[in-house]
Amino acid sequence: MPADKEPLYEQVANETALLIRSGTFRPGDRLPSVRKMSRQKKVSISTVLQAYIKLENRGLIEARPQSGYYVRRQEENESPEPNISSPQQDPCQVSIQELTMMVLRDITNPRLVQLGTALPNPDLLPSSRLARIVISLTRENPSLANTYDLPPGLEPLRVQIAQRLVENGCKVTPNDIVITSGCMEAIDLSLRATCRPGDIVAIESPIYFGMLQSLEALGLQVLEIPTHPRDGISLDALRFAIAHNSIRACMVISNFNNPLGSCIPDENKRQLVALLARHEIPLIENAISSEIHFSEQRPTVCKSYDLRGQVMLCSSFSKDLSPGYRVGWVVPGKAKAEVEWLKYTANIGVAPLPQMAIAQYLKTGGYDHHLRRIRREYAYNVGLMSQAVLHHFPSETRVTRPGGGFVLWVQLPEKVDSLELYKQALESGITLTPGYLFSASLQFRNFIRLNAACWTLDIERAIQTLGRLVDEMARS
Amino acid sequence: MPADKEPLYEQVANETALLIRSGTFRPGDRLPSVRKMSRQKKVSISTVLQAYIKLENRGLIEARPQSGYYVRRQEENESPEPNISSPQQDPCQVSIQELTMMVLRDITNPRLVQLGTALPNPDLLPSSRLARIVISLTRENPSLANTYDLPPGLEPLRVQIAQRLVENGCKVTPNDIVITSGCMEAIDLSLRATCRPGDIVAIESPIYFGMLQSLEALGLQVLEIPTHPRDGISLDALRFAIAHNSIRACMVISNFNNPLGSCIPDENKRQLVALLARHEIPLIENAISSEIHFSEQRPTVCKSYDLRGQVMLCSSFSKDLSPGYRVGWVVPGKAKAEVEWLKYTANIGVAPLPQMAIAQYLKTGGYDHHLRRIRREYAYNVGLMSQAVLHHFPSETRVTRPGGGFVLWVQLPEKVDSLELYKQALESGITLTPGYLFSASLQFRNFIRLNAACWTLDIERAIQTLGRLVDEMARS
Repeated sequence: MPADKEPLYEQVANETALLIRSGTFRPGDRLPSVRKMSRQKKVSISTVLQAYIKLENRGLIEARPQSGYYVRRQEENESPEPNISSPQQDPCQVSIQELTMMVLRDITNPRLVQLGTALPNPDLLPSSRLARIVISLTRENPSLANTYDLPPGLEPLRVQIAQRLVENGCKVTPNDIVITSGCMEAIDLSLRATCRPGDIVAIESPIYFGMLQSLEALGLQVLEIPTHPRDGISLDALRFAIAHNSIRACMVISNFNNPLGSCIPDENKRQLVALLARHEIPLIENAISSEIHFSEQRPTVCKSYDLRGQVMLCSSFSKDLSPGYRVGWVVPGKAKAEVEWLKYTANIGVAPLPQMAIAQYLKTGGYDHHLRRIRREYAYNVGLMSQAVLHHFPSETRVTRPGGGFVLWVQLPEKVDSLELYKQALESGITLTPGYLFSASLQFRNFIRLNAACWTLDIERAIQTLGRLVDEMARS
Repeated sequence: MPADKEPLYEQVANETALLIRSGTFRPGDRLPSVRKMSRQKKVSISTVLQAYIKLENRGLIEARPQSGYYVRRQEENESPEPNISSPQQDPCQVSIQELTMMVLRDITNPRLVQLGTALPNPDLLPSSRLARIVISLTRENPSLANTYDLPPGLEPLRVQIAQRLVENGCKVTPNDIVITSGCMEAIDLSLRATCRPGDIVAIESPIYFGMLQSLEALGLQVLEIPTHPRDGISLDALRFAIAHNSIRACMVISNFNNPLGSCIPDENKRQLVALLARHEIPLIENAISSEIHFSEQRPTVCKSYDLRGQVMLCSSFSKDLSPGYRVGWVVPGKAKAEVEWLKYTANIGVAPLPQMAIAQYLKTGGYDHHLRRIRREYAYNVGLMSQAVLHHFPSETRVTRPGGGFVLWVQLPEKVDSLELYKQALESGITLTPGYLFSASLQFRNFIRLNAACWTLDIERAIQTLGRLVDEMARS
């Protein structure tokens, strides 16, 4: 419906929602009084009142007696989170290839409201700055792509990465790092360096479906370990699993598990590394969202507790700088020579230009300033989507309260099948990721993952539509 | 030694060699008479004579009685080629990882004369044109890297590739193509899609060491098939191998095998595809140097004879446009869905910018014109290096006569160990590739591969030095 056909109060509500979304009004801010807004917008007082009530219903603002309307704080979300996962206790083959590829095809469709991929918010990527760097590098040296850049990859980039890791408590030199084509390749090479087909890998559950796809492609079995929505992998369950199975490697998303949003507490990280070291089990640590933490304190990585070179720390710049540059890295510890060689056999090396561009950005581009900004924005958008879900979905719905990253993990009423919801949502022009994809044992039938990186009117409406669909499915 | 300290005749010889190298004097051309040159250069007649004798000794020119000095024709190279290879007849594990990685490390050392890598001649890459495209694409859309480009890869690029393949007799549509990070990834994914660890792959022998490294990394066994230096894989030997072994896949470099330079004749290509089809064995065809053919006729690819989708055609733009863009492709035939999925699990997808740049170059950049130029230049440089080797190396040396590409395969006297030569050459500031790397059964002890992409005075001197080293080793 074009804006001029909308009721007046809807227009005022949407404009105000935009001001909240853009950060003009922050959580806790008082909105202009009804009278003042009526003068500003040149509409009647009752129109403003209707608009405010509308926003209140959406969960964006709240009325405080004798005081006025305020933007809601996300901390006030005290609804229950999803429970700790309870996967089956036997290792199993991963076989969600077809389902995953189907979902991925919809992900590339720009006509859909994209709540499916965990793509970063394009407005929160330093695209122009990176583009300027690419242009100046290419202009200075048009021949920079005239040679192969062999593993371990471009030294200036490894220097920048090492410096940041040292700041985060890791004993790492540039020589300990191998540059990869994104974080997925870092993980894939780490798995190939440590496991053989048929081996069992203990993993957090749920876990990012791309990692499950790597495991499936390599013919590995997984043992899914119960994982708490805030504290990550259960150490007790892992201890039990190690005692009863021959675990070849362990894989976690230590900071802000995708989809859970969990962050393994420092003490647990230390214990996790020590436990695995005792059993000589390598830990493949995906830390791709580590920099996007909502609290002041930057979380540590498991690697910082690693005394024996058994932690393989994997990450990339796909979430905070650019998914399309395909530049990631791994600190493979003891397996460094093997990973370096496997990288060569897989595709020789990473293109020099994007490596140079990111190295220069890290050195001169104000990365820390950029990170401080996107942390605030993602915290805010995640809070808004979380509120909207709680508002529009049936009351049995549970939503995670992630401490970082930008995805939400939503537990729907028992009756709702996420694949059926996926299909219905698609018909309404919306994608989401069905829970099935996040487990080898199909345990998350009634869960969905939502990308909360952006908050727009279209997305707000999409959440409303999803809420209606879920409600209908829960009642039918 | 700086030029002004060189004897005068050496200066004249070097200047004349440069004129030959640059194509000012072409094979068969008559050089200026001794008298004329003496006037031109303002040097004595005996100096010119000494210079011409020097060039004659280098194999660059020849004296014809009563006529003068002429630039030698490469066709006049009638020395024997290496024999057809005779590898062992049992499958074996590949284990040349450490040796290969050692050689690769020296390859990145810019202080060495690089005869080791098969890097293209930087002067024969359209770097400036590609750089301009990169700059304009980035300027037009700074956000083009803000998303993942999922397999099968960028459509406009697949369209360009498909059009060229159709011209070359393949029934291929853009939907049959998967874009990869270079040709090595195309091969690695093809192997992963068709084989499991322990399977036997029949391969040409010798074959590019990168392909052997992929086989080793995937835990595959190889059965090396005798391969003729001009006609490629022996069909009789392959038939015998298939009859006596369970071959899971076959792998060839159909046009201008690296290092052999062989090109499978059309009729053999047809028979090869038919033979493998009868036994339902997929053919992984590396066609990376196909465009760099020295004769007028563009060679066909095995894929053009493929009726059942069993040929997996792999290539890239690393030899003719840019090694550092890391853009290659595969036409996987029946295995397309599997390859597409494996590409996703390996590293999600290829960066959008280099794909767009190459697509635009192919569409508008005068690719065919560029190819015609580099074919001539490579034919010329390969001819010059071949002559120089025959001239400076001991007489038992045999050199291939490649019909395309830009590497030479040199069979040294029996006594010479290529690894020992490698070490001694390194001390003289020269790299080459020892024959060991091109076989899983270490059969090419006394062979080396030389990169003949460039021809400069430094390289000419390096060939002279190598000749001396080989001579000493052959006599000792």
